[in-house]
Amino acid sequence: MNKFIDLSKEVKEAMEERKPVVALESTIISHGMPYPENIETAKTLENIVREHGAIPATIAIINGRIKIGLSEEELEFMGTSKEILKASRRDLPVVLAKGLSAATTVSATMICANLAGIKVFVTGGIGGVHRGAEQTFDISADLQELANTDVAVVCAGAKAILDLPRTLEYLETFGVPVVGFKTWEFPAFYTRESGLKVDYKVDDEIEAAKIIKTKWDLGLKGGVLIANPIPEEYALDKAYIDKAIEDALYEAEKRNIKGKEITPFLLDKIKDLTQGKSLKANIELVKNNAHVGAKIAIELNKLYKEA
Amino acid sequence: MNKFIDLSKEVKEAMEERKPVVALESTIISHGMPYPENIETAKTLENIVREHGAIPATIAIINGRIKIGLSEEELEFMGTSKEILKASRRDLPVVLAKGLSAATTVSATMICANLAGIKVFVTGGIGGVHRGAEQTFDISADLQELANTDVAVVCAGAKAILDLPRTLEYLETFGVPVVGFKTWEFPAFYTRESGLKVDYKVDDEIEAAKIIKTKWDLGLKGGVLIANPIPEEYALDKAYIDKAIEDALYEAEKRNIKGKEITPFLLDKIKDLTQGKSLKANIELVKNNAHVGAKIAIELNKLYKEA
Amino acid sequence: MNKFIDLSKEVKEAMEERKPVVALESTIISHGMPYPENIETAKTLENIVREHGAIPATIAIINGRIKIGLSEEELEFMGTSKEILKASRRDLPVVLAKGLSAATTVSATMICANLAGIKVFVTGGIGGVHRGAEQTFDISADLQELANTDVAVVCAGAKAILDLPRTLEYLETFGVPVVGFKTWEFPAFYTRESGLKVDYKVDDEIEAAKIIKTKWDLGLKGGVLIANPIPEEYALDKAYIDKAIEDALYEAEKRNIKGKEITPFLLDKIKDLTQGKSLKANIELVKNNAHVGAKIAIELNKLYKEA
Ligand SMILES: [Mn+2]
Ligand SMILES: [Mn+2]
Ligand SMILES: [Mn+2]
Repeated sequence: MNKFIDLSKEVKEAMEERKPVVALESTIISHGMPYPENIETAKTLENIVREHGAIPATIAIINGRIKIGLSEEELEFMGTSKEILKASRRDLPVVLAKGLSAATTVSATMICANLAGIKVFVTGGIGGVHRGAEQTFDISADLQELANTDVAVVCAGAKAILDLPRTLEYLETFGVPVVGFKTWEFPAFYTRESGLKVDYKVDDEIEAAKIIKTKWDLGLKGGVLIANPIPEEYALDKAYIDKAIEDALYEAEKRNIKGKEITPFLLDKIKDLTQGKSLKANIELVKNNAHVGAKIAIELNKLYKEA
Repeated sequence: MNKFIDLSKEVKEAMEERKPVVALESTIISHGMPYPENIETAKTLENIVREHGAIPATIAIINGRIKIGLSEEELEFMGTSKEILKASRRDLPVVLAKGLSAATTVSATMICANLAGIKVFVTGGIGGVHRGAEQTFDISADLQELANTDVAVVCAGAKAILDLPRTLEYLETFGVPVVGFKTWEFPAFYTRESGLKVDYKVDDEIEAAKIIKTKWDLGLKGGVLIANPIPEEYALDKAYIDKAIEDALYEAEKRNIKGKEITPFLLDKIKDLTQGKSLKANIELVKNNAHVGAKIAIELNKLYKEA
Repeated sequence: MNKFIDLSKEVKEAMEERKPVVALESTIISHGMPYPENIETAKTLENIVREHGAIPATIAIINGRIKIGLSEEELEFMGTSKEILKASRRDLPVVLAKGLSAATTVSATMICANLAGIKVFVTGGIGGVHRGAEQTFDISADLQELANTDVAVVCAGAKAILDLPRTLEYLETFGVPVVGFKTWEFPAFYTRESGLKVDYKVDDEIEAAKIIKTKWDLGLKGGVLIANPIPEEYALDKAYIDKAIEDALYEAEKRNIKGKEITPFLLDKIKDLTQGKSLKANIELVKNNAHVGAKIAIELNKLYKEA
């Protein structure tokens, strides 16, 4: 185990007993949702994973240590402290060397999960190619992480504020399989439709697990993206949410908000514009992902034990 | 040997006896040429490789198995079945996990060749940066494969339907040597001229083999691109073929053809527009590549045996 | 040690005695400065490194050998011969296989330093995303090297002729930490200001060394960029140098200068336009980097010896 890592008791035992473990990220806690919904959601996600027979491992950096599995107090700290940075791949060495605390993005959570030997990771939506990236070159490090780090990521697509067609092209160039969970359409976070196709549809968690293991058995580095649409009953109306996104993007541009601040700003703005409907949808889609991620982790675990 | 791989008897013996082996791809068979020219060309290529003293290994995925060296029946299946998918890096795990059949692109053929220990691969033209990619971000996974996977690729440049200047820039950024075989000009598939320079000219197969081995001896991951122009007598007139390409691109845009379908569509359209002249040129250039690839494989094999 | 490498006596002894070593590049000698300033600067840099307690290792390719540490004659040869190529990653295998001589860019110097086990490298400014790259796709291989090769690079930012905002975005996407040495602002080579922020500020060489070692202890491939601004007293006026850069870029475009020739052309042109002030600044900033690089190498060396 890497010297920077602290496993919680629950995760440590699970790893020793070769139980299925599901990684969860902390950016959603510190920068993605308001208090107290963030803490409640984090706990709900952990419980969903447990109820379906896997062990949750929420990941964060606290005082220069990689925490795999958070205690009640650590979760509260991540959800309330104003001093929590946001760490992607480039930030990890600095945050750890300086003994700081940071929420982990999809990129950093993949790295930490991989260091700890966790193979399945559940999030809301990945980062991707930002709108206007043909000019700004603003492309999330999440995509390179998917190209390089051996962790399967269960999500409801890329965050809808992004440029989805270019995000899919980028993933293709870098060889990342994009697999629809019971769908042929790439979901758009708040909605089930995007007008874009995934590479392949799988009908269940067994099929997903087989694809993931096959990739690594082939020696192909990097992740598999499992795109799991938001449940029908919680999906927002496409025209409605698209309008809110457009308005939020306009506001961000007007205020010249960029870099790490852009995604939290937009999510927060969209929440306001939709009177909280987007937050509710976000919570429900990630709960749905936790459910599916737990089932995939269990099947993948079986495949590795058989092998 | 990777558990997904089946070697043909001919290839297996060649590998055991440390004979020079040349990989050949199957996209040209299933998606690049009409029947029966595709089967005839595949056989001709194999024979050219044999005549020059190397062993051909045509690569394809059949019913979830990586076939290295195809039987008569397998070749016929790849050339006639309508259910053959097209697999690049992202598709391989899915196609194998689901037990499907797929022709391998440059990217996937490089991966499979590398898994089998084959170091030289002959194709017609590689994929690259698509025209308009500054907007669409459509960049072939072949370029990342060249950046990452240790297989030398002999081709007549990138397919002429692509954006050649940007393709060369991309290869430079990712550290892929582009070597002209007896030329300082980067060939443009159907023509010997592109107006673009290669990085270096080599005068023979010995020099090419030395560069390839030196790259890997340095521990530099990825391929070497050997750009071998179409023989003078088969080259098309530049203005003539450029016009056909423009017309085909216009047609593709009008019909909104994209993704995996674009390259086969354009090649087919150009064939029609040139009354089959482009197909004839395609066949001749790849035959020429097979010849040069066999000679390079033989020299590279000598260098490795000496080492 | 890789079979292509020759260590100088000084460097060999330093490596055996586990002394701190600082790599220096040779493009600045052969293509970045006129004679005799180039030779004088190279010697001055080596002496600065020695005075601060580390061992300099100037790197170049001479007659197909990777030289780590140059003799007086070799330095003279690199500074005066007209036959010196310029080698980045893609060129290395060819230059070595053909027995040619080449100055090493940031990219190639990182590769050679890494092969020799040298962990800190001092240069003037790295390459990056070229202005207009959204159209040309011209992006220096230096950035991919920083993403992949485990060498820390001390510089005064990216060369000011480049597109700095996009260069920083690219580095973020590929997970390269950009650390300001005693500054929160990303320096712009000739000036201390760019209007752009670094990811993190470090206050001394100890902190820098800790971040570098932490990155590699985490198993994260690639470099760390230490951005060290030109000393106040040698910095040029921002408006003044920006005007010269604009004029030089205009001239390069008018003359259609591209590829490997563009950077040397622009630096030379800017030198003329500023009556040598830019050359003077360039010399001073790289001396300052040598100073800081030596101190970081010493601290990093201590950390590794303790470990
Ligand atoms: Mn960004
Ligand atoms: Mn494509
Ligand atoms: Mn360039």
